[in-house]
Amino acid sequence: MNKQRVVIALGGNALQKNGEVSAEAQKSVANQVGETIARLSRKYEIIIAHGNGPQVGNILLHEETAATPAAPAMPLETAVAMSQGQIGYWLMQAITNAFAREKRRRDVATIVTQVVVDPKDPAFRHPTKPIGQFYTAAEAVKLAKSKRWEMREDSGRGYRRVVPSPQPIDIIEKKQITTLVEAGAIVIAVGGGGIPVVRSKVLKLLRGVDAVIDKDAAAEKLAELVKADIFVSVTAVPNAYINFGKKDQIALGLITKNEANHYIKAGEFGTGSMLPKIEAVTRFANTRRIGIITDPANLENALRQKTGTIVKG
Amino acid sequence: MNKQRVVIALGGNALQKNGEVSAEAQKSVANQVGETIARLSRKYEIIIAHGNGPQVGNILLHEETAATPAAPAMPLETAVAMSQGQIGYWLMQAITNAFAREKRRRDVATIVTQVVVDPKDPAFRHPTKPIGQFYTAAEAVKLAKSKRWEMREDSGRGYRRVVPSPQPIDIIEKKQITTLVEAGAIVIAVGGGGIPVVRSKVLKLLRGVDAVIDKDAAAEKLAELVKADIFVSVTAVPNAYINFGKKDQIALGLITKNEANHYIKAGEFGTGSMLPKIEAVTRFANTRRIGIITDPANLENALRQKTGTIVKG
Repeated sequence: MNKQRVVIALGGNALQKNGEVSAEAQKSVANQVGETIARLSRKYEIIIAHGNGPQVGNILLHEETAATPAAPAMPLETAVAMSQGQIGYWLMQAITNAFAREKRRRDVATIVTQVVVDPKDPAFRHPTKPIGQFYTAAEAVKLAKSKRWEMREDSGRGYRRVVPSPQPIDIIEKKQITTLVEAGAIVIAVGGGGIPVVRSKVLKLLRGVDAVIDKDAAAEKLAELVKADIFVSVTAVPNAYINFGKKDQIALGLITKNEANHYIKAGEFGTGSMLPKIEAVTRFANTRRIGIITDPANLENALRQKTGTIVKG
Repeated sequence: MNKQRVVIALGGNALQKNGEVSAEAQKSVANQVGETIARLSRKYEIIIAHGNGPQVGNILLHEETAATPAAPAMPLETAVAMSQGQIGYWLMQAITNAFAREKRRRDVATIVTQVVVDPKDPAFRHPTKPIGQFYTAAEAVKLAKSKRWEMREDSGRGYRRVVPSPQPIDIIEKKQITTLVEAGAIVIAVGGGGIPVVRSKVLKLLRGVDAVIDKDAAAEKLAELVKADIFVSVTAVPNAYINFGKKDQIALGLITKNEANHYIKAGEFGTGSMLPKIEAVTRFANTRRIGIITDPANLENALRQKTGTIVKG
């Protein structure tokens, strides 16, 4: 029997519980993810995309705080590559061990992934994504000058760097990812939305840029490119909601892409939280088949379309 | 025509020139590596292993100096995974761009790699490999207590942590690496000697350990496992030498594995510099076919057995 191919996007906080951020605490959360993936892999071909918000935040904090001339800080794009190695390692070891506990085995691979963005993407003129640590106003002025960073006051806690959040238009390693999935491996890819790169005009040379690609947008692009059957955005809540947080809040179940687009236009979803997820699953439902939003506990049933928010084309 | 399969181990300093360690400087050195690899790929299937000494040193420096309770330092094994993402990204982008400049294209992939070591390896009782920054004697005493690190005075510059350097016995991602190479990709793997892991007795569960696997030993193990035809250790000098640094110094050319073993036993090679390289290429010549030591400038000719130190079985 041909297994359905599923791209699962794990939220950036999916590796943290109770705010514990040590490597051991994050590995222990990864173990739970691993067991779910091992179970699902009986019925599905699985590609895992993941966020990296808290992890790359800590990498940047360490890199910037402790930089010296002999050990300079790495730029954001390289820090994303570092976080892909870090989180990919934790996840793949957790998945391998989940199989071992069941006396099964499957190959798992983490592919360091570059995601192409358009240098003319309007996001480059309007950086919106805050990253890294908080600075004082005086430090912010200095960094804006020395590093040409765009700095912005953030939630009353100080100043942070803001970077562009451009749309993903291609994934360099799509073929390598497909090759491994077709050989039977579970693949971890496009971590943190991928390393953002632009292509030069004539020779199509790749160059990393300091930006953050939305994790759900990048995972959805991957789902399209690898011809997945299902795309799932796994988050902290079992469904997307309309009238969210109000008395008449309604959990969305099975809806059409037209209904989803209607709710998006009506402003039902929070920018920076549910909006990018519902946009990504709706885009996938548009071009392919089924887009799902749910939480880890409901993932298995949601894939069988018994729970969660299911958007169909 | 069937291409010969080559595993190339790049020295840990292979990405640095004149001691420049910014991301931009290291990418620019990677570009030269990329051009060589693009040229070689016409005739060979290529897997690249690389060191990570300077890079993981800087990661540890940043992680440890700037650690806070909310953003704790990552352990060494996770730092190795981070350096695999970082260096793999730089190398794969450089290789892709080298092809683009020649209006060719080839897929390139970085595989985050775990390397199995034996928990009973005697190296665990005798840590020898200094890593990370220098500390004062007082700091060293504190760290030995709080983190259970083994600290040792190093070259009169202060105290450093020392970790075990066990032998590689298996590579978890060997099949995934082979799959990609057979699909036509150039693969970057076992960065920094790989993430060291041990297997538990009964269930064979993987667990990362703080250790450093010699990069040449790990690359040679990979060369065996992927059934490579040639294993090359690329270093700063064109050959291995006997009577090294003396008036009657002799560059070794084509030698048998018995000759190599003879020179190894005679103590001709420096521990921590040429010795692990000549041991690795000799072990490969023993089990497979051709082991080579040379520098980047001579790599192409050495693969055709016209220069470099060539050890044959």
